[in-house]
Amino acid sequence: MSNISLKIGVATDRATTLAAINTIEGLSSWWTTDVSGETSEGQTIRFRFNESGPDMKVTASSNDKVVWLCTAGPDEWLGTEISFLIKDEDETVIYFQHKNWREETPFHYHCSMKWATFLLSLKELLDEGKGRPFPDDRKIVTTGF
Amino acid sequence: MSNISLKIGVATDRATTLAAINTIEGLSSWWTTDVSGETSEGQTIRFRFNESGPDMKVTASSNDKVVWLCTAGPDEWLGTEISFLIKDEDETVIYFQHKNWREETPFHYHCSMKWATFLLSLKELLDEGKGRPFPDDRKIVTTGF
Repeated sequence: MSNISLKIGVATDRATTLAAINTIEGLSSWWTTDVSGETSEGQTIRFRFNESGPDMKVTASSNDKVVWLCTAGPDEWLGTEISFLIKDEDETVIYFQHKNWREETPFHYHCSMKWATFLLSLKELLDEGKGRPFPDDRKIVTTGF
Repeated sequence: MSNISLKIGVATDRATTLAAINTIEGLSSWWTTDVSGETSEGQTIRFRFNESGPDMKVTASSNDKVVWLCTAGPDEWLGTEISFLIKDEDETVIYFQHKNWREETPFHYHCSMKWATFLLSLKELLDEGKGRPFPDDRKIVTTGF
């Protein structure tokens, strides 16, 4: 099993940070503009990138943590877990993990890099008021996603 | 053991890409401006960030691969391996790996995110002619590195 583990600090408080992760409006402001569903525990959120994308079941949602289980979407994502842990350190810090990948395939390398750019987008949203969700996302290849 | 695995595509050829990774001038244009040593196989490169930083022994250097072993620097980096594999796909692609971390500590999360921003810097150098090496690097925290 392999994990993608990333950490970023933001210049705002924990409640504001959490709202960017546990509301549809927040998520659509930094990951993809096409988000639907419900973000409360037990519900499912649908993320779409040009009509395809993952469904995430919310398995935990508290004032310092959000955890999703991927229940539909890219084959390599099925059964993987995504978590956001928010801590008060010298500043508000987000510990992100996308874990339980079966293998370190090229798609794993790609998603690891892509998650990093979306966390930069989340930081830009929180620090400067505007993120870069798909389709205006920061590109990591010359053509394509 | 845990790995950091990242992938990025660039709009230039493999030889130009390689020169950004296997020369002192190239490395100082996207990772840190303070680089010294020799980049040929068997030699050691010293990377410094405000006077501290890792020493890397070059264990492989060919026309599609560069591999370093960390021989001095942060405790968690000692004995870890960093590799750059350059492939001709639809475009030139860099497969980056920093592997054999003993644990997924907060510093591992930090370095994973920081490597992603330095690969963006490498992409900017190759695509646009100017990278963002330390100390002008893209920050992932509000204060500090």
